[in-house]
Amino acid sequence: MFSVTVRDSMMIAHSFTGEVFGPAQRLHGATYVVDASFRRAELDGDGVVVDIGAAAGVLHEVLGELTYRNLDEDPGLAGTNTTTEALARVIADRLALRIRDGALGPGGDDLEGLAVTLHESHVAWASYERPL
Amino acid sequence: MFSVTVRDSMMIAHSFTGEVFGPAQRLHGATYVVDASFRRAELDGDGVVVDIGAAAGVLHEVLGELTYRNLDEDPGLAGTNTTTEALARVIADRLALRIRDGALGPGGDDLEGLAVTLHESHVAWASYERPL
Amino acid sequence: MFSVTVRDSMMIAHSFTGEVFGPAQRLHGATYVVDASFRRAELDGDGVVVDIGAAAGVLHEVLGELTYRNLDEDPGLAGTNTTTEALARVIADRLALRIRDGALGPGGDDLEGLAVTLHESHVAWASYERPL
Amino acid sequence: MFSVTVRDSMMIAHSFTGEVFGPAQRLHGATYVVDASFRRAELDGDGVVVDIGAAAGVLHEVLGELTYRNLDEDPGLAGTNTTTEALARVIADRLALRIRDGALGPGGDDLEGLAVTLHESHVAWASYERPL
Amino acid sequence: MFSVTVRDSMMIAHSFTGEVFGPAQRLHGATYVVDASFRRAELDGDGVVVDIGAAAGVLHEVLGELTYRNLDEDPGLAGTNTTTEALARVIADRLALRIRDGALGPGGDDLEGLAVTLHESHVAWASYERPL
Amino acid sequence: MFSVTVRDSMMIAHSFTGEVFGPAQRLHGATYVVDASFRRAELDGDGVVVDIGAAAGVLHEVLGELTYRNLDEDPGLAGTNTTTEALARVIADRLALRIRDGALGPGGDDLEGLAVTLHESHVAWASYERPL
Repeated sequence: MFSVTVRDSMMIAHSFTGEVFGPAQRLHGATYVVDASFRRAELDGDGVVVDIGAAAGVLHEVLGELTYRNLDEDPGLAGTNTTTEALARVIADRLALRIRDGALGPGGDDLEGLAVTLHESHVAWASYERPL
Repeated sequence: MFSVTVRDSMMIAHSFTGEVFGPAQRLHGATYVVDASFRRAELDGDGVVVDIGAAAGVLHEVLGELTYRNLDEDPGLAGTNTTTEALARVIADRLALRIRDGALGPGGDDLEGLAVTLHESHVAWASYERPL
Repeated sequence: MFSVTVRDSMMIAHSFTGEVFGPAQRLHGATYVVDASFRRAELDGDGVVVDIGAAAGVLHEVLGELTYRNLDEDPGLAGTNTTTEALARVIADRLALRIRDGALGPGGDDLEGLAVTLHESHVAWASYERPL
Repeated sequence: MFSVTVRDSMMIAHSFTGEVFGPAQRLHGATYVVDASFRRAELDGDGVVVDIGAAAGVLHEVLGELTYRNLDEDPGLAGTNTTTEALARVIADRLALRIRDGALGPGGDDLEGLAVTLHESHVAWASYERPL
Repeated sequence: MFSVTVRDSMMIAHSFTGEVFGPAQRLHGATYVVDASFRRAELDGDGVVVDIGAAAGVLHEVLGELTYRNLDEDPGLAGTNTTTEALARVIADRLALRIRDGALGPGGDDLEGLAVTLHESHVAWASYERPL
Repeated sequence: MFSVTVRDSMMIAHSFTGEVFGPAQRLHGATYVVDASFRRAELDGDGVVVDIGAAAGVLHEVLGELTYRNLDEDPGLAGTNTTTEALARVIADRLALRIRDGALGPGGDDLEGLAVTLHESHVAWASYERPL
């Protein structure tokens, strides 16, 4: 099994609902350093899992919808706590939709899975992985 | 599948038994930077895998039993070489016991697996993963 | 010249005033991974620049005044853009005040300088250094 | 499941064939920071997955066949694009051959799998994993 | 004193002249992860050392002249060994020229110094610093 | 001013004397990831600060005198607390002696300074710098 991973980041504000979150119930923020991994069993005719430039581009587009925003006011995220793990899924699912719509070209059809990791600090990160 | 990972560290002395270890048969030591990953298929009602503060706390407690000690004199580790991979298992098993005892609250019951990675230097690390 | 550095982090929301900031004029946020370095020409009688536990403690206290907050609403920061470089100075100056007030014990008087670096992402960071 | 990972690096020149590669069709180069992971279900009698010194040694030998070279002129790689993901497989397969030939001693027979990750920059890496 | 640093990378082929270089006399290559630091004594009216987007942009332009190339064939580098330390100076000097030509706007005139670090692997890097 | 840095590591046991050290008064240990920087104003005729292979070699030799040992029993370190900052100086001074003795060849005479950083964990490190 092969994978290719690209890294980018986003900077957002948000707050959490629920006593378990303690001081994080207040409006605060985070830089998420985001790693998106694309998996497939065999390489294509060019010898790649995916065009790495296209992969970086689609990740940058997905993060562009979230970065420099207060996620508490994002209608697409209403009603959910935008925890690190929940955002990992949001980003993975949006990447999957774009791949299905051809953002990675025809080779995107041969991808078998995605994993997205969000680093919230030097001591904590969360991941979500899913099939394609 | 979701995971959340927290990082902490410990500083221990130890020595190894067996010619394969060469100079590491002498009393020496290590800083282990320890990553503990908690895995589960779906997020809980708060949108988390586990309360990240509680996860960091339980890891810190487990490492507190080992850090600033000579592991050669730890009765709980007698008769085993405390290699990086063996310590990864010791820590994972101790985390699992605490989770079963409720250290992560009722949500701990929904965790499906644990992985523990110990970084012994900038060029070597070892992991152990197990179900819960 | 000797230095000792400790690392911690904080997660804040803020926005910037000024067209140069583009989309960062919107409310957003950041994780700052913060490195505080303490400098002195000679070691003390114990062989240290500073008690590293005390140094980590005073940094954690200073970050505790800022983390999990919207800095736009912090009266102590009113009227300034809380850029990465400006926050590096705020943190260095607050560390210096606490050191003068004895937070690091009498040995704190022998420190000659401080440097604070804030990492805002994997590709950008800022520092401020000052004498003590 | 246990794993042990060792890190090394190599510095090579190469070029790619195919319009998808854009400017990387020109002769250029890369430092690959290479992580090789060795996996097995149980530890051996010494408490290790593999002798970590032997593991580092066999990785260094495999990289020694590639480093400080122009891969476009390497007969063993003729006809393939030496992309990051393709090189991860080349290195994993060469490690597997050496393990089968006894490079890790009799304990090498108990290894169940290998994973090789090549970091081509601070924002991109690729992996290949295979059974043994 | 304040500084702001931005990180980018380039991938080049080259060879060295001189017996001291051993196998690096052969055509090989490197990824250089490049950190450019901009220094100034006081922040400007916006509270910044430099517009960080502009700083990242000018670094990307300078690296764009070098990346995906065989430096042995670059007329601008003829007659010099393009070692890591020599390239750090080339990049710093090119940044300085662009800053003098206004690439960072009028605020660029207040910068006092530049430092450029090139990481050639996980175990080696080189820096060059100069006044502006 | 130019600098070249090489990284290596060592794994030692030790204990500290003095109440300020708390639990670190017990026998424990550390991995020190060690960065040694060599500084000089101008490059030599080959375009380097120092032969990077020779620099890595001399650092490895100096660390070889300390690694896999209990520093409490090292006569060369008797009577001193082997704190991170004290060890940074020990290593820098030993590098300086070897450079004076020709370990880096005649080019070693043109080096102007040394800096040594020891990373004791992911959240703490110490440095010592000196002229040559």
